[in-house]
Amino acid sequence: MTSIRRPTIGVFDSGVGGLTVLRALLDRIPNADYLYFGDTARLPYGSKSAATVAHYAVGAVNYLQDHGAELLVIACNTATALAFDEIKVGSRVEVVGVVEPGADAAAHASTNRRVIVIGTEATVASHAYRRALEARGITVREKACPLLVPLVEEGWTEHPVTEQVARIYLSEAFAEDARDADVLVLGCTHYPLLKPLLRRVAPDHVTIVDSAESTAHAVAGHLAIDPIHGPAEPERRSDSRLRFFATDSAEKFKKMGARFLGHPVEDVVHVDLKE
Amino acid sequence: MTSIRRPTIGVFDSGVGGLTVLRALLDRIPNADYLYFGDTARLPYGSKSAATVAHYAVGAVNYLQDHGAELLVIACNTATALAFDEIKVGSRVEVVGVVEPGADAAAHASTNRRVIVIGTEATVASHAYRRALEARGITVREKACPLLVPLVEEGWTEHPVTEQVARIYLSEAFAEDARDADVLVLGCTHYPLLKPLLRRVAPDHVTIVDSAESTAHAVAGHLAIDPIHGPAEPERRSDSRLRFFATDSAEKFKKMGARFLGHPVEDVVHVDLKE
Repeated sequence: MTSIRRPTIGVFDSGVGGLTVLRALLDRIPNADYLYFGDTARLPYGSKSAATVAHYAVGAVNYLQDHGAELLVIACNTATALAFDEIKVGSRVEVVGVVEPGADAAAHASTNRRVIVIGTEATVASHAYRRALEARGITVREKACPLLVPLVEEGWTEHPVTEQVARIYLSEAFAEDARDADVLVLGCTHYPLLKPLLRRVAPDHVTIVDSAESTAHAVAGHLAIDPIHGPAEPERRSDSRLRFFATDSAEKFKKMGARFLGHPVEDVVHVDLKE
Repeated sequence: MTSIRRPTIGVFDSGVGGLTVLRALLDRIPNADYLYFGDTARLPYGSKSAATVAHYAVGAVNYLQDHGAELLVIACNTATALAFDEIKVGSRVEVVGVVEPGADAAAHASTNRRVIVIGTEATVASHAYRRALEARGITVREKACPLLVPLVEEGWTEHPVTEQVARIYLSEAFAEDARDADVLVLGCTHYPLLKPLLRRVAPDHVTIVDSAESTAHAVAGHLAIDPIHGPAEPERRSDSRLRFFATDSAEKFKKMGARFLGHPVEDVVHVDLKE
């Protein structure tokens, strides 16, 4: 455990999805400054080899450390799944990924010891959540939901089409021997934007675990501070200094990012990392 | 015009989408051999700078020429839009892109001189079709349809969700002053798989121009051979030798590719191009 009076937290993702993790961090740990790195020019990481993802991720977190990050959050399921150990070895500061906190919260919430994880094709193929949950004695079904990210990016978070797609995916996920699963893990940083819709579509007895929120709790634990429970007051949030780095267009990042962060994204710098 | 007795045609795309162009080529020009290069590890090109796309595309078409391609087809809208001139300058053989043939066919088919082009966000942002069609005296509306590629990749080519999404996109595209457009250009290599569905959803008076087919016709013209009209007989197709190169997993390429090509994808070699 590290105790830093007013920490600077570095958040890394391949794109804008990790901004839902930053949003959760701002709610729980408002008395911190944040640096966010979105490797938007090189996404998606899901189709790349583990070696390439590790190389990109290490470059990005080094950049964050060089700019003052005292704790790192890997807000990217693919990078956490494929490159967490390499990132950790190369870092001078503590590193928190999204998978372990989500698995902890799911294991804690499940009475039936049976959990469903939804995510992208790449996250499901990595079986990172399966490993983390099985290590906690939980039976897991992983379900890839490849249309949910593009639906969120289209802005259709409360659209009848998205509801229909979610119904199809969840009915496939909760079929047969997974019928009595009682926890649904949102294993993709885009999915928190679909939480109200997924709450309506998922069976009533199911607890939804949002790995962005679980990660924010884990970070608070690492900082040995009490996380704030419930939504933060707006004034509290304004205290944090936010800086953003994007490898693709800063304008595009601002435009797309605001939806994920829940408020305007201002201070964005374009960064050109060498391969 | 080049006349080659039995040509070897190189087809390049960032992924598997260009296989719909290869499929159209096989239908129209069965007496040829084909090399297909899918830069699957570095897709999507749409989020990358013009310089990066040009660099990747030139590397890929050089690879195809080194392996015997005597004519090159750039079956990738983004590469055609952003890097066609650079590819052409660097090539020892003739190069055909997807945009000009599609624009030719659309200009030929439109009585009202008003055309709608649908494509990905990146293709629409490049305005390559707009430029090509306006140069032919055609008024254009370009409409980005970002959900159609993931829907095709999910295999939902005849799914009620896809029909609903297509209805929304096309009603937006054919609104207001574009109501009397009489041609719809499929400006994305994934969309030929949606042609039957789009035919049902588009207004009856609208002609659908499939840029994959238009490109196959243009290639036949370059080879100074008569394209075959109508579907080829299956025996004719078996005459062609097909070889595939993919920068990401060969297995994944085979699995995804078969749907786009319309028959099994066999001879796939993994290629690791240096950055």
